[in-house]
Amino acid sequence: MKTACLFLLAVVLSVSTLLAQSAKRPREYGIRFGVMPTGPLNAITDVPGVRVGQVTLQQGQNVRTGVTVILPHDGNLFQQKVPAAIYIGNGFGKLTGYSQVEELGTLETPIVLTNTLNVPVAADAVIDHTLAQPGNAQVQSLNPVVGETNDGFLNDIRGRHVSKQHVLDALRTARTGPVEEGNVGAGTGTVCFGFKGGIGTASRKLPASLGGYTVGVLVQTNFGGVLQIGGVPVGVELGKYSYREKLDGSCMMVVQTDAPLDARNLKRLAKRAFMGLAQTGGIASNGSGDYVIAVSTAYRIPHETSSNFDEMKLLRNDATSPLFMAAIEATEEAIINSLFMARTLSGHQGHRVEALPVDKVVELLRKAGQIK
Amino acid sequence: MKTACLFLLAVVLSVSTLLAQSAKRPREYGIRFGVMPTGPLNAITDVPGVRVGQVTLQQGQNVRTGVTVILPHDGNLFQQKVPAAIYIGNGFGKLTGYSQVEELGTLETPIVLTNTLNVPVAADAVIDHTLAQPGNAQVQSLNPVVGETNDGFLNDIRGRHVSKQHVLDALRTARTGPVEEGNVGAGTGTVCFGFKGGIGTASRKLPASLGGYTVGVLVQTNFGGVLQIGGVPVGVELGKYSYREKLDGSCMMVVQTDAPLDARNLKRLAKRAFMGLAQTGGIASNGSGDYVIAVSTAYRIPHETSSNFDEMKLLRNDATSPLFMAAIEATEEAIINSLFMARTLSGHQGHRVEALPVDKVVELLRKAGQIK
Amino acid sequence: MKTACLFLLAVVLSVSTLLAQSAKRPREYGIRFGVMPTGPLNAITDVPGVRVGQVTLQQGQNVRTGVTVILPHDGNLFQQKVPAAIYIGNGFGKLTGYSQVEELGTLETPIVLTNTLNVPVAADAVIDHTLAQPGNAQVQSLNPVVGETNDGFLNDIRGRHVSKQHVLDALRTARTGPVEEGNVGAGTGTVCFGFKGGIGTASRKLPASLGGYTVGVLVQTNFGGVLQIGGVPVGVELGKYSYREKLDGSCMMVVQTDAPLDARNLKRLAKRAFMGLAQTGGIASNGSGDYVIAVSTAYRIPHETSSNFDEMKLLRNDATSPLFMAAIEATEEAIINSLFMARTLSGHQGHRVEALPVDKVVELLRKAGQIK
Amino acid sequence: MKTACLFLLAVVLSVSTLLAQSAKRPREYGIRFGVMPTGPLNAITDVPGVRVGQVTLQQGQNVRTGVTVILPHDGNLFQQKVPAAIYIGNGFGKLTGYSQVEELGTLETPIVLTNTLNVPVAADAVIDHTLAQPGNAQVQSLNPVVGETNDGFLNDIRGRHVSKQHVLDALRTARTGPVEEGNVGAGTGTVCFGFKGGIGTASRKLPASLGGYTVGVLVQTNFGGVLQIGGVPVGVELGKYSYREKLDGSCMMVVQTDAPLDARNLKRLAKRAFMGLAQTGGIASNGSGDYVIAVSTAYRIPHETSSNFDEMKLLRNDATSPLFMAAIEATEEAIINSLFMARTLSGHQGHRVEALPVDKVVELLRKAGQIK
Repeated sequence: MKTACLFLLAVVLSVSTLLAQSAKRPREYGIRFGVMPTGPLNAITDVPGVRVGQVTLQQGQNVRTGVTVILPHDGNLFQQKVPAAIYIGNGFGKLTGYSQVEELGTLETPIVLTNTLNVPVAADAVIDHTLAQPGNAQVQSLNPVVGETNDGFLNDIRGRHVSKQHVLDALRTARTGPVEEGNVGAGTGTVCFGFKGGIGTASRKLPASLGGYTVGVLVQTNFGGVLQIGGVPVGVELGKYSYREKLDGSCMMVVQTDAPLDARNLKRLAKRAFMGLAQTGGIASNGSGDYVIAVSTAYRIPHETSSNFDEMKLLRNDATSPLFMAAIEATEEAIINSLFMARTLSGHQGHRVEALPVDKVVELLRKAGQIK
Repeated sequence: MKTACLFLLAVVLSVSTLLAQSAKRPREYGIRFGVMPTGPLNAITDVPGVRVGQVTLQQGQNVRTGVTVILPHDGNLFQQKVPAAIYIGNGFGKLTGYSQVEELGTLETPIVLTNTLNVPVAADAVIDHTLAQPGNAQVQSLNPVVGETNDGFLNDIRGRHVSKQHVLDALRTARTGPVEEGNVGAGTGTVCFGFKGGIGTASRKLPASLGGYTVGVLVQTNFGGVLQIGGVPVGVELGKYSYREKLDGSCMMVVQTDAPLDARNLKRLAKRAFMGLAQTGGIASNGSGDYVIAVSTAYRIPHETSSNFDEMKLLRNDATSPLFMAAIEATEEAIINSLFMARTLSGHQGHRVEALPVDKVVELLRKAGQIK
Repeated sequence: MKTACLFLLAVVLSVSTLLAQSAKRPREYGIRFGVMPTGPLNAITDVPGVRVGQVTLQQGQNVRTGVTVILPHDGNLFQQKVPAAIYIGNGFGKLTGYSQVEELGTLETPIVLTNTLNVPVAADAVIDHTLAQPGNAQVQSLNPVVGETNDGFLNDIRGRHVSKQHVLDALRTARTGPVEEGNVGAGTGTVCFGFKGGIGTASRKLPASLGGYTVGVLVQTNFGGVLQIGGVPVGVELGKYSYREKLDGSCMMVVQTDAPLDARNLKRLAKRAFMGLAQTGGIASNGSGDYVIAVSTAYRIPHETSSNFDEMKLLRNDATSPLFMAAIEATEEAIINSLFMARTLSGHQGHRVEALPVDKVVELLRKAGQIK
Repeated sequence: MKTACLFLLAVVLSVSTLLAQSAKRPREYGIRFGVMPTGPLNAITDVPGVRVGQVTLQQGQNVRTGVTVILPHDGNLFQQKVPAAIYIGNGFGKLTGYSQVEELGTLETPIVLTNTLNVPVAADAVIDHTLAQPGNAQVQSLNPVVGETNDGFLNDIRGRHVSKQHVLDALRTARTGPVEEGNVGAGTGTVCFGFKGGIGTASRKLPASLGGYTVGVLVQTNFGGVLQIGGVPVGVELGKYSYREKLDGSCMMVVQTDAPLDARNLKRLAKRAFMGLAQTGGIASNGSGDYVIAVSTAYRIPHETSSNFDEMKLLRNDATSPLFMAAIEATEEAIINSLFMARTLSGHQGHRVEALPVDKVVELLRKAGQIK
């Protein structure tokens, strides 16, 4: 009981902080995405054991960047790998670690998100982190998975301001519980649909009759298209779209689930997150780096073991569709959450990006009957 | 017996009612999809030279199936191949011809759509057709591209009622100009979002400043999810969705464009059609066979030539984004068109599938401000 | 006419000579491929339960083709699917069934090999076969896997002489035990490295310490390159190669193993069969359709079951390498077996293809120390 | 003339240096690989304009590593991109940059090879290099392509001894002309087939009638299997193989050609290099990271241009087979070159790896008639 109370307290504190920001998530306005219920926090951390850590860099006029890390469990990930897959929506991006995840079907490091030009330093930090972990003294090879989007409009990206220490700090402070959204971590300087983007998260929970599994999603939004919210063509109504200019940008999506899926079905799940992006009006433009990393926390694959076998009890193909729907819905909501929670920001070279005009959006959705 | 008679009566009445109602496309109600203008017919045949042929089989109580063919040009396709690519959204389907298109980047036959169990006979008909064409007397190898969806709820699919002659008839009668939609050709017996699906088509035309290219889409809709129309969650409002049951079905999508793209960029374009499916609320369930075949009509690749080279003037990567958006929009609209144009149908084993209740839908969209 | 008569005489003589010679497999001459032991029959049927059926069509002057089928087990394959994967070495081919195997990781029909233009009729026969099986009365969708090579030099391929009945006969007569090689079944009219190709098979058995698994391979050889046997550059020595002409042709490879692998590791295994093709001097020329279908017979995945789970005990990634080596060796040997067992053949339009001159080859290998 | 003489002098000097090493390439012993002629240097630098730079780190007892870079042309690669593709033979590796090359079909940076744990620092150095190049002041996003193998047996890999400066030095000193092989650059500490591996290179030149194109290959050899040289099973004869132990290791392969290929056909070419690896007896074991990066130097794709089009005159599909054979042969020879040119080396923790016993190998090949 005490634990529960403390937990509640933590939530309250966190929520109060968020209230201080005077930003509310779409659901607080009555906006709904899809038909499935969310998890308790409506966050990737609704998947038991999943932790998120973020370091935000806002320094002077020019530094608007950061790091977001996601850890599927709190053990030694290299020694206790998790099944994983990566789906590439549009590959104009610099994600590291793709081919080994594809070949072996496992993830063996934390997932790190940052800006485009700091991917190498972040990967190097993951190597530092892993080599230094107890039990890893013999490790000579490991596969960092680091994704990115380009925050170069608001951030002095060529300055490469993320250091190894920032990544290690994000790893060290990663925790379960509520996840901060908006201008935070790897989303500090991002731009989405012409508005200020950022980090967003959401989740779906299947009914017990379908296994009771949770699908959690975290996104780093930095892409373009014609924004739709709950189906309402907000981008058109606000006159904020174009198909005549270069429509660049990217979206990193991380999916975690406690459903027992192997790499093949995780790749299918990952593809559905990309469908969630489509539902927001994203078009995966030529210049977009749209990647989905999907992980199951349902079982672990030891790096070394005396057995030649992995024993698994996997969800059958024909039981996956509700999870697919969950991934679509949670990704759509996570993206819109990132927009609602982001704030107007100025940065590099005096560039300024306005936050989504939430009041106007809410009014539009009310008119459309999407808020009742 | 009595039941059967009453049932028959119901069908007749239903058909006559619907005919009286003379189905209209969503745009005629003022519904809009996206932001780009359509071509003159809002059909795949807006791409110059593209022809469509359809044969509809409605015989007795049990036969509800057919054939739809799409030809990129009116020449000898084997001798004058076209650049092409196939994107697999969800591969639970029986499409033939994938690997050669993937390897060589070309299409050398008409595209044929039919039902699942008639794919072989349709492929055989394409071989008949090609071997018999003038100039093909030496042809010993060709790659039929035949797609399908499963119409087994309304159609006696195990009866395999499509014959070679039906396919040859569809090829012979293919023409430019308006394309019939709804319960026609390969869409005769299909079901989509729980309503009667069918064939749909739409197009987008880029402004002259972006090249003036047309992107045309034709779909065979037979899939599930939570229907959205113009963003309005129609499926929820009509109580017509489920994630607790098996959500199966498939969608074949054919994209044609006169933009000069090679196979690599056609594959990217094809992927965007799948994003258009996502915008309608499709989830690409486990049991879905979702394929996109994309073709450029901008240039031809001769089967034999004295030169060792293909000379091409291709659209650059960074000029593709408007085409991507066009493919998304046209696919979304083509799918909704198929639903608006389809009519209630009864068939195999007395199964009956209602048409989308257009009046209710229009009312919902009017309330939502999507029709003004 | 005279030419024809002389020609006919030549064929008769040639056949009788070869029969007198009673073809022997390379191992009978002391030739060795790799370092691992074979199974008892050195055939795909060394994998317990695997059956092969073949129908050979040699009619008149022009028909030189046939059908070869491989069945992983003797049950109802649709109801008791097997894990499977398909690797595409070079995709200039007409294999059906690729995408569903890739998506779902299972095979649900027999594997059929035939000639290029008879793929549809063979697929149709597989549908006949499956729909008619006891227990399949409700089946409305199934995924035939049919591969092919082009035997159009020796066979009147445009005549499409394979009928459904031929395929059904091959299925009906499929059996465990020795597998006929050379000019038989789907290899009746094929050409390999400029010599008469055909069907070949081989196997490898891992030591008990590595699990005691068997890897069996069956090939349909119809490709080009510079032939190597046991490393000896036979193609060069016999002056039988060219890189100045069109080097076309194809190779279908079927791998069966009783090792418990899922689709991901079966795809990796399949890729190693393609490496075995490389070891014979095959180059996977532009016009080649090189496909590997890999299946595990170690467990079955029921089409329907009351459980939402598949429980599996799979070989770990790091225990797969010996299987990889086995697949390479067995494929190399199966290809060379097909050449040793094939006989000189005349056919369509008076074309004639000589068998590998085994005596000369054996002499070359003896000189090279490859036969001791 | 003067230039030619100076060039000759340079070659002589270089060769004399190599002679001083008392290591000879297989061809100097009369060993032949395949049937096609080599380029003048039998090196990747036979492709006009291609440059190679190497930095070798041998310090104290424990540092045995380095860097090898390959540059397709001497211009600004970011501003003048080259068509490229990456084929993944076995993806247990840490190559960066895969997805963007796959998506866009171009390479925009030098290719860097190093050890597994120094990939991030090398990628960071490529960013330094590119951002600093004249004309790149606006660059905010670039895609480093860095490959690796694990030299942790001879090298203190956890010490991560490669610095950015080493990479920049390799880039600065890259040059056309002869390429040093063996224990050099990224091959300093590698092990191949149980012997000392390293860097190797080779080339093939097509006859003028086939276009006169050159295919050059450079490899970093660090893999296992059962060594074959010119077809002779050297690994077996020397008792140097095993399929009972973990067979790990990797091979990076870089292919350059002046043939005008686009990304699709470059990917096919890359796959043939992997077939060349197979011809040496490599098995692409579970733990292997086998990647091929293929580049055409025949045309450049500007980063920015006023045109919306890329105009290209590409080699047709059916003219690619001779290039495929060239890639197979050159890769096989480059791998064997790396073994002949490598020398016995001791390193980290006192580990020692013997060079290939060239005298014995030559004797074996002479007996086998492979050296005449």
